[in-house]
Amino acid sequence: MSTPAPTGWLVVGTGRHADAFGLPGLAGARSATALAVCGSDPARASALAARHGVPGCGTALGALLADPEISHVYVCSANAGHEQHVAEAAAAGKHVLCEKPLAPETTGAVRLAEACRRAGVVLGTGFHLRHNEAHHRARALIRDGTIGVPVAIRVEYLHVLGRGDSTARLATSRAVTNPSRGSMNGTGSHAVDLVRWLLDDELGGVAARMSEKDTGAARGPHRVVEVTATSARGAMVTIAAGRARHPGNGITVLGTRGRITVSESIGNHGGGLLRLVSDTGERTVRVEPHDVYAAQFDAFVAATAGGGPASASGADGVAAQRVADAVDHAIREGVS
Amino acid sequence: MSTPAPTGWLVVGTGRHADAFGLPGLAGARSATALAVCGSDPARASALAARHGVPGCGTALGALLADPEISHVYVCSANAGHEQHVAEAAAAGKHVLCEKPLAPETTGAVRLAEACRRAGVVLGTGFHLRHNEAHHRARALIRDGTIGVPVAIRVEYLHVLGRGDSTARLATSRAVTNPSRGSMNGTGSHAVDLVRWLLDDELGGVAARMSEKDTGAARGPHRVVEVTATSARGAMVTIAAGRARHPGNGITVLGTRGRITVSESIGNHGGGLLRLVSDTGERTVRVEPHDVYAAQFDAFVAATAGGGPASASGADGVAAQRVADAVDHAIREGVS
Repeated sequence: MSTPAPTGWLVVGTGRHADAFGLPGLAGARSATALAVCGSDPARASALAARHGVPGCGTALGALLADPEISHVYVCSANAGHEQHVAEAAAAGKHVLCEKPLAPETTGAVRLAEACRRAGVVLGTGFHLRHNEAHHRARALIRDGTIGVPVAIRVEYLHVLGRGDSTARLATSRAVTNPSRGSMNGTGSHAVDLVRWLLDDELGGVAARMSEKDTGAARGPHRVVEVTATSARGAMVTIAAGRARHPGNGITVLGTRGRITVSESIGNHGGGLLRLVSDTGERTVRVEPHDVYAAQFDAFVAATAGGGPASASGADGVAAQRVADAVDHAIREGVS
Repeated sequence: MSTPAPTGWLVVGTGRHADAFGLPGLAGARSATALAVCGSDPARASALAARHGVPGCGTALGALLADPEISHVYVCSANAGHEQHVAEAAAAGKHVLCEKPLAPETTGAVRLAEACRRAGVVLGTGFHLRHNEAHHRARALIRDGTIGVPVAIRVEYLHVLGRGDSTARLATSRAVTNPSRGSMNGTGSHAVDLVRWLLDDELGGVAARMSEKDTGAARGPHRVVEVTATSARGAMVTIAAGRARHPGNGITVLGTRGRITVSESIGNHGGGLLRLVSDTGERTVRVEPHDVYAAQFDAFVAATAGGGPASASGADGVAAQRVADAVDHAIREGVS
């Protein structure tokens, strides 16, 4: 049996994300290969392509999309560009995996999902945490009933304040009308998606509150957004998102017959420590570090090959944005 | 220098709490000694006294309170009796340490606090978690600024479903008009008090929600009440109370310069594992098991000797009941 040739990818975006995660992930994926990078700065695009051994590069998205060897596009440009870049890729008949948020407004994200459907291409949202093997194991333990019926789930994902903060990120973080949006577009969306995916359930009854402490440090304000919600099947959901100096990121799922905690698993690398306590005993599993971005590319290629929806799909990206909208509303209206 | 003679105590209540915690605690305390136990069943009172080497016992509270050797009273009778027993002890001029809740209704608890003040006796509330050395260390790290300004605190205290559940407890748990009251009178009050004491701050803006899953097991329903609040100085507070098969009880305090987690510390024995992560590094401290009830009696005696308020005081008991009232209200009104 012959192995199919790897799918050809265009990477849109030449920032830190492409350099640190996107292009290494494509290099590590079995079923994908990067054929070109696209960015507004030609020197930067060229340097990035050279550094990662990518044959093509350019500044004209339309021209690069015209290459028939390119069947898939990875959009990791600045957030403000996502909507336009996804729309162009879909119009060119390419499958698109896009970093969240899909668009600045939820309505734009909905339009993108519909445009991709009409174009017959698969839209994926870059919720890479779904591709951590530690999280897969937690999900399996929930689905097979090991911990009984889920009663409460808590996901905490705070960006480490001072690590990887750029002036641009801080400016964005400070400038948004509602500071919670910064947190929800950042770590919060990942946490929301993780809850939806782990429980295979939807969130409703969203309430939220925020605490911000500006210590005056160059690293910017300490900010925690806490979201409470109830899943459609009645599990209590708590999400903490934002930025803190010393976060304790992790997942806890409490069920009627057991409890799962996953730690050291939330970030840009796979792996983690899963602990299960149930009626039949206790178990701790260490999942070794692995490339979640490579796993994400392979999963997306499998979805496009099978004609099925991606995990996470465009609809999943839209769902996370709707929760972020509800959080903004709750904080603006003082509903907590 | 001579050591003062231990204070003489009357224990009101002959149930499991007196047997397992109250009388052993008095035996372990340096500054207290049990002189008598009082209960409605003479055989039970007599057997309990004999088992713990307590010289006196009886069924008539008034007669026992008349003993001038008895200066302190520990009320650990059934909850419904607390108000009457505290009132009688105060009227007899005895200092009273009472298990929570002080009274079925907050108004009754307020009356007790006032009655004790007028009688010139000290009223204490049995929030034994304040007397765990692991919690003292956490509090010290908050107060000395090691973790900066507190941003968020979470306390989870779920009773282990199936451990120590009596038919009577389950009946009470199921019969209350609002099931959240069972959780708040139980583990919830301790969690509320722990937050108030650790932060030295008051709670406001209380919202709450509850999830209940009745698996039909004899051990009764799985029930989690989640309380969110904001402290007067702006820390976000989250409390989980109730009953679960496999709880993950503990404390997390996130500050602008560090984070404290305490685990294995919440229950009827002292000790635990404290972990500090801060700008200056990481540290884990194991506090060995110790008798928190003995420590509580000694602390209460010190307060009565010094004429100061107890830790926790009657006012602290009232404060916890007010939060429980707000939780009930929030759940009844669907404010979550």
